[in-house]
Amino acid sequence: MKLRELASLIHGEIIGDESIEITGVSGIREAKEGDITFLSARKFLKDLAGSGASCVIVSEPLPDIPVAQVKVPNPQLAFAKLLEHFYVKRHGPAGVSADAYISGTARIAEGVSVYPFCYISAGVSLGKGTVVYPHVFIGEDSAIGEDCILHPNVTVREKVRIGDRVIIHSGTVIGSDGFGYVFDQGVHHKIPQVGGVIVADDVEIGANVSIDRATTGNTMIGSGTKIDNLVQIAHNVKIGKNSLIISQVGIAGSSEIGDYVTLAGQVGVADHTHIESETIFGAQSGAMGHVAKGIYSGSPGMPHREWLKARVVFAKLPELQKKVRALEAKIKELEKEEP
Amino acid sequence: MKLRELASLIHGEIIGDESIEITGVSGIREAKEGDITFLSARKFLKDLAGSGASCVIVSEPLPDIPVAQVKVPNPQLAFAKLLEHFYVKRHGPAGVSADAYISGTARIAEGVSVYPFCYISAGVSLGKGTVVYPHVFIGEDSAIGEDCILHPNVTVREKVRIGDRVIIHSGTVIGSDGFGYVFDQGVHHKIPQVGGVIVADDVEIGANVSIDRATTGNTMIGSGTKIDNLVQIAHNVKIGKNSLIISQVGIAGSSEIGDYVTLAGQVGVADHTHIESETIFGAQSGAMGHVAKGIYSGSPGMPHREWLKARVVFAKLPELQKKVRALEAKIKELEKEEP
Amino acid sequence: MKLRELASLIHGEIIGDESIEITGVSGIREAKEGDITFLSARKFLKDLAGSGASCVIVSEPLPDIPVAQVKVPNPQLAFAKLLEHFYVKRHGPAGVSADAYISGTARIAEGVSVYPFCYISAGVSLGKGTVVYPHVFIGEDSAIGEDCILHPNVTVREKVRIGDRVIIHSGTVIGSDGFGYVFDQGVHHKIPQVGGVIVADDVEIGANVSIDRATTGNTMIGSGTKIDNLVQIAHNVKIGKNSLIISQVGIAGSSEIGDYVTLAGQVGVADHTHIESETIFGAQSGAMGHVAKGIYSGSPGMPHREWLKARVVFAKLPELQKKVRALEAKIKELEKEEP
Repeated sequence: MKLRELASLIHGEIIGDESIEITGVSGIREAKEGDITFLSARKFLKDLAGSGASCVIVSEPLPDIPVAQVKVPNPQLAFAKLLEHFYVKRHGPAGVSADAYISGTARIAEGVSVYPFCYISAGVSLGKGTVVYPHVFIGEDSAIGEDCILHPNVTVREKVRIGDRVIIHSGTVIGSDGFGYVFDQGVHHKIPQVGGVIVADDVEIGANVSIDRATTGNTMIGSGTKIDNLVQIAHNVKIGKNSLIISQVGIAGSSEIGDYVTLAGQVGVADHTHIESETIFGAQSGAMGHVAKGIYSGSPGMPHREWLKARVVFAKLPELQKKVRALEAKIKELEKEEP
Repeated sequence: MKLRELASLIHGEIIGDESIEITGVSGIREAKEGDITFLSARKFLKDLAGSGASCVIVSEPLPDIPVAQVKVPNPQLAFAKLLEHFYVKRHGPAGVSADAYISGTARIAEGVSVYPFCYISAGVSLGKGTVVYPHVFIGEDSAIGEDCILHPNVTVREKVRIGDRVIIHSGTVIGSDGFGYVFDQGVHHKIPQVGGVIVADDVEIGANVSIDRATTGNTMIGSGTKIDNLVQIAHNVKIGKNSLIISQVGIAGSSEIGDYVTLAGQVGVADHTHIESETIFGAQSGAMGHVAKGIYSGSPGMPHREWLKARVVFAKLPELQKKVRALEAKIKELEKEEP
Repeated sequence: MKLRELASLIHGEIIGDESIEITGVSGIREAKEGDITFLSARKFLKDLAGSGASCVIVSEPLPDIPVAQVKVPNPQLAFAKLLEHFYVKRHGPAGVSADAYISGTARIAEGVSVYPFCYISAGVSLGKGTVVYPHVFIGEDSAIGEDCILHPNVTVREKVRIGDRVIIHSGTVIGSDGFGYVFDQGVHHKIPQVGGVIVADDVEIGANVSIDRATTGNTMIGSGTKIDNLVQIAHNVKIGKNSLIISQVGIAGSSEIGDYVTLAGQVGVADHTHIESETIFGAQSGAMGHVAKGIYSGSPGMPHREWLKARVVFAKLPELQKKVRALEAKIKELEKEEP
């Protein structure tokens, strides 16, 4: 495809030769001759120097670079559109396989694909255009919306409600029992977990995630929230809209996370924590109590800037200790000299 | 159901109108009119104020509250009993599906349910009343006890022994090979993992847990121990009775954990660690060596109270550093003044 | 088997009675009478005292022990060979089950085993001698090499290339979408993840691991690298050869890990990190930026020895704070005394 046609797809302004041929779309480090790539931030300029790309999508024209440029307001968004346009193959419709088990009381809308070896329980509903890959289990009375994708080996237990355009990656379990016991006479008695899970529209859930059902009521994931791989979401947790929960985060029971919150990798959230909207927790940090909007690091979490400063001193603690000892010696000396 | 009948189910003493109608059982934050809820600790009193509950189960009567009360020794236990009574639907028996693969040498006791697409290998035994949901794999010669529940997509490898009343949630893998290699001539050679796993009675194992088989001998989980989601238990680990292993804990090879131990979320236990009974490790902490009974936090773990104090000073380290610098300057001044 | 025959299997030199009968091979703590075990390091000598083993494999003869010894250069390697010899049952060939779904365009080499309920998509190739256990999904155009073992409930998505002699444990997902979004007008838009995953020869991947496909290009795992359970490997990560990635490690997007790197349990690696070959990160530590060859601990990571010293002072911070306060008081006193 000529650069001119491609630029029109993303409504971009060409700087350079609009007649060159673009043969692929690729990340800056993987791009080879003929590829178009994008520059999302100045810090990746060094990668561009080593890149074989024939064209780069930018937000501000770069001086002195030997390749063509396409200027758009959001280069990464334009890049995503091009990947979509050139590479993404639509899922389904593959129809409903005779090798799947479908309960007689399940309601399957038109255009649904159910692959072999799926198990669709009684009372389940699958919305229009939804694709259910092999080895997926959907429990009794669960409802999946329209245009969802359930990748292979997903488990959705009973009484779970999933919105539209939700993507669930392989190995993920939604609606497992919450971890609830009451201790009596030396034994942990199970508290039945009889609530459900509600996953709103446009949520994406990574691989091998666990989202527990509520004890009573519902565990809730707000619309547009994206959850990475291997995340733990305990019973009765409520997450708001458009939050990002990065890999291996663990959120303990009954915690509430606002909208546009980012929890970086391996963050731990204690039970009954309340995190206000637009808050960010850095990787491996810990959240507890009521957390006002802000940026936090460390475990337990503290304001990020303070943590940075404290970490600098932490690394020099042996030196600080030596200084204190030297001071003590000097003071002793000075005190001796006093009459 | 009238409150009077309900109170008699849990042997409770009614404070208030025993003739009111109870229509649901619910957690304190989800409760609406007609519901009975419970108060497990004073700190949740504020939740009660905002709750719509018509009745609350308590251990001590509360003065000045507008709703009926039922007094029992352990309100949470009573609550669990009511959830069980009103909401829990028995699993199975659904019989053995013709769409499951069952080896001719497997022994299936009476009242067992095996759902479609299960794979039951040669020499497996399934005890009376056990329910095996779709997509479960059970490897050669493994034995599952009575009244167990294996949720969808569980993998139990060969030579695993599971006791009675064990619940295993979806995505969990029991008996995967331990991570054992010997380094020789630049290459990691696999050490065959030929041991097994023994899971005792009344254990519950969450979703997406990994419990590795022993190199030789057995990895062991003691009776009544409860394991949350996404936990890693390495080869030859031994966990005692009635311990609680919270989500995302990792326990490295050959470690021994006593009885009634609590490992909070994301705790890491180094290999060959020995943790005495009744010990608690706080969230995200680390355990190694021989750990005497106590409460620990931090990584590496230290006594919880000391850690709390050290964390307070950690947050003020930049200030402490400034103070030391000021002291150094003053001393220099004082030394100068000396004759 | 007589000790003499067994010693010849591992080319060892016998110290003691070569005619004794060996009936089992076992770890030092599990060994009972008749068993041969091994001593990998001096620190396990105390375990030998309590062991019932009748013979021990050593690298240097031990004085004063009551049991026979076999001397070899690498006792653990010899032990691994004996386990292999006595206990390991070959996987397959079990043939291709009629109860599996195999696309007409899949290429299945000779000696391949495909168990019931597997789903082998169009264009997949399975190399000679590979064993695919029940409930495995392999996506379109993925290629699996020779003599691989895919344990039950593994998911390999489309366009994944797996080398020879690769072992993948249950619940693991290879090729799930990377966590990539671009934020625009209040919403996270999905960046299509259209790259692949390349897993080289002799890699072993534990249970419930997630390895994401690249946005473009490939996520790559180098030959001989071993990955433990519940590890997260994000899109476009590149891991070199013969590295060890221990349980619950998380490696964020586009990071590069060299050869012979060890990442201990629960380590977190930030995105775009570069870790040089032969580097070690201790348990629960964090890596970011460019990391020169070395041993690191702490989060963020710092040289291990410095971290050890800093941790010692950390534990005594309250004491250090007291000392500084005492110094301040004394200085005030001294200053007062000045004329």
